[in-house]
Amino acid sequence: MQRKYPFFKIGIIGGGQLAKMMTQEAKKMGFWVGVLDPTPSSPAGQLADRQIVADFYNPEALKTLVEESDVATYDIEHVNTQALKEESLRRKVFPSPELLEIIQDKLRQKETLSRGGIPVPRFLPEVSHKALRELGSPAIWKARFGGYDGKGVAKIEKAEDLASLPQKEAFMEELVTIEKELAVIVARSRSGETVAYPVVEMVFHTANHICDQVFAPARISEETAQKAQEIAQKCVTLLQGVGVFAVEMFLDQSGKLLVNEIAPRPHNSGHFTIEACVTSQFEQHLRAICGLPLGSTQLLVPAVMVNLLGEKGAEGVPVVEGLEEAMAIKGVSFHFYGKAQVRPFRKMGHVTIVDTDLEAAIRKAQRIKEILHIRS
Amino acid sequence: MQRKYPFFKIGIIGGGQLAKMMTQEAKKMGFWVGVLDPTPSSPAGQLADRQIVADFYNPEALKTLVEESDVATYDIEHVNTQALKEESLRRKVFPSPELLEIIQDKLRQKETLSRGGIPVPRFLPEVSHKALRELGSPAIWKARFGGYDGKGVAKIEKAEDLASLPQKEAFMEELVTIEKELAVIVARSRSGETVAYPVVEMVFHTANHICDQVFAPARISEETAQKAQEIAQKCVTLLQGVGVFAVEMFLDQSGKLLVNEIAPRPHNSGHFTIEACVTSQFEQHLRAICGLPLGSTQLLVPAVMVNLLGEKGAEGVPVVEGLEEAMAIKGVSFHFYGKAQVRPFRKMGHVTIVDTDLEAAIRKAQRIKEILHIRS
Repeated sequence: MQRKYPFFKIGIIGGGQLAKMMTQEAKKMGFWVGVLDPTPSSPAGQLADRQIVADFYNPEALKTLVEESDVATYDIEHVNTQALKEESLRRKVFPSPELLEIIQDKLRQKETLSRGGIPVPRFLPEVSHKALRELGSPAIWKARFGGYDGKGVAKIEKAEDLASLPQKEAFMEELVTIEKELAVIVARSRSGETVAYPVVEMVFHTANHICDQVFAPARISEETAQKAQEIAQKCVTLLQGVGVFAVEMFLDQSGKLLVNEIAPRPHNSGHFTIEACVTSQFEQHLRAICGLPLGSTQLLVPAVMVNLLGEKGAEGVPVVEGLEEAMAIKGVSFHFYGKAQVRPFRKMGHVTIVDTDLEAAIRKAQRIKEILHIRS
Repeated sequence: MQRKYPFFKIGIIGGGQLAKMMTQEAKKMGFWVGVLDPTPSSPAGQLADRQIVADFYNPEALKTLVEESDVATYDIEHVNTQALKEESLRRKVFPSPELLEIIQDKLRQKETLSRGGIPVPRFLPEVSHKALRELGSPAIWKARFGGYDGKGVAKIEKAEDLASLPQKEAFMEELVTIEKELAVIVARSRSGETVAYPVVEMVFHTANHICDQVFAPARISEETAQKAQEIAQKCVTLLQGVGVFAVEMFLDQSGKLLVNEIAPRPHNSGHFTIEACVTSQFEQHLRAICGLPLGSTQLLVPAVMVNLLGEKGAEGVPVVEGLEEAMAIKGVSFHFYGKAQVRPFRKMGHVTIVDTDLEAAIRKAQRIKEILHIRS
C-alpha cells in the first residue's frame, strides 16, 4: 500500500500539552497537524501546521478542522459532541462522539462499566439521605458533568453535609479505603486489537487532588498487575474505544481493584511512556486512530513522572527556578508545555526520571520537587 | 538561579533533519527556536517559532538569526564562518566558527588531529606520484573542502588515475584495510565536561557510500569500545569543542583504531539515541551549547537505525510504500523529515528498531529495507 506525503492529516480539538505531545509524534512521522484551540499559539499550535483559533464548542470551527483532516481526535473531554455527530464528520472522529458522551457523564460512564461487568465502587444515581444511609458515611459526592483534577468531587462526612453541596447534577459513591491509586494506559485499534502498558501508581497532592507523581511500574504483585491490565482492556473493549485510554483504578485495602474513571485520550499517568517505553502513548494514540498497527508497550526502564504546577501566587510570565540543578540529576527529562502564562496549580510541564532502580528514581523525584519550581 | 520563559532562544543555521530533531527537543523543554534555511517550510522550520528564509552564506541573515538568539548553532558545516566571527556574534555561536573552519578543511582537520596525538590514517598534504609511491597503491584522494556522504573521495588504483582526478584542492591518504567503520557521539559542555555514547557500527551502501545502517552497540570487544570512546573524547577536547560531535573511525584488520573524520554537530550515527538512550544526542547538544549539565548517555536497549533514502528515479512529492507492514514490526519507530520533494538517494527519513537482542534488531532492519520504500 502506498501513501502520499504527508501520509495522514491529523486534526486535534484542544491545543494543550496532550495535543502538543501528540503533535510532536505526528511531526516526527511527517504527518500534517491541525489544532483547534481558543488561545493563539497554544502549546500544540506552536508546532502544528495550522491552528484554528476558536472555542471547542464552535460547530463551524469543528467542522472546518475535521473536514481538513483525515482523522480527528481531541485532548480534552469538554467538546461539542453534537457537532461531531454530523454524518460527514463522525466517521473521522476517534474516539467516537457517542463514546465521548458516555465519558462526559460520570454517572452514565459508571453505569455502562457496571452493566458490562467491570468492578466499580458501589454508587447510587442520586444525592439523598437515603443514598447516604445505604452507602454509609463518609460517602463521596460526584458531579455528573465537568469535573477534572479533583474538581466536582466532595466527601460527605455526615447527613448535614448534604445541604451544603453544589447545586449540580450529581450522584453518590461509597468511600473506598484506598491502598493505592493505579492507572493503566490501554490502546485499542480500529480493528479491535488492544494492548496495555505496565500498571502505574498515581500519587496525588493531598490538598488539591491533582496528580503529583506517577511511579512506573506500580509496586504491586504480578498477579494484581495482570488483573488490572485485564480489567483496563475489558473497559476499553466494552466502550468500543479507538485510541488511547487511561483507566484509573483504586486498589482497596482488601486487595480488590475498582475502576474509578476513564479518560478517552492520552493521560498524565502515561507521560512516562515517552522516555521509558518502546512506543509512547502519543505515538500509540496516532497509530490507533490512523488504523496503523499498534506498537510495543514494553517498559525499557523504570520511571517516575513529576508534574510541574504553577506555585501558589504565581501569575504572569513563567519563571523556572532550579533548572540547572534539576538537569544535573542523571536520568532527568524536562518538559515545559509552552504556556505563556502561569497560574497557581496550572500544569506547566513535567519531569520524567528514568533509573534502572525505581526506588532511586523515587528519591530523585523527591529532590526534583524540592529544587524545581515554576513561579512568575 | 531563575530563568524566564522561554528560558533559552536557540538559533539554528540550517533547517534540515538535524535541525528538526534539535527543534523537537528544544520545544519539548519550552525553548524558543529560530531557523535559517533557504527552503521555506524546511523540516525544522515547520516546528520552529520562526524561520528566516535565506542562504547559509548571507551575512545579514546570519546576523539577524544570531542576534535574535541567546545561543546559535548549525546543522551543516557549509556555512559562512567569516560572518559568524564578528565580535557581537562569536560568543553566542557553538561550536565556535574557528573550530568549524578546521572541520571544513579536511586536510587541516587531519593535521590538527595528527599533531594532537590522535591516531589517523597516514596522509600527505599533496596529490602527486611521489605521494602515491609513499602511501602505496591503491590510495585515497580526498577533496579538502565540501565533501560529504562519500562525495569528494576517490580511490586511486594506479598512477594513471592521478591524471583524471577532479581539479580541486585535495590531499592523499593510505587505504586502510577496514574491519569495521565505527562512530562515537561525544558531547562537551561549555565547562569542558565530556561524555561519550556507546560506540556504534556504521554500515555503508556499497555503491554510493551513504550511511545505510547503524548498529548500537558495535559488536566489538569491551577493550576496543573503551579505547574508541577515549580517542573520541580526546578529539573533542583537543578541538575545544562545545556541543555534540560525531567522531568517525576505522577499526582496521590489525585491530587498530584510526580517526577518519569529525562532524561538529549531531550526526546520522547518533539518531538511535532518541529511542535507545536516556538522553538523545539532540537534547545533549542543546544542554551543551546552553551551558546546562550534560545528560546520561546510557544505552537502555540495543538499536539499529536504517536510513530511508529516495529510491532510484524518485522525483516529486514523496510516497511511502510499506508503512503499515513496517510499523507492525515490534520496536519500530518511523521518522520522516518532512521534505516536500524526494530525489534519488536524498535522506528522507529513518527508522529505529529497538530490541533487547541486537541480532534480532538487525534481522528486523533487513526486513524494513525490503518492505519500506520512499518513491514518488
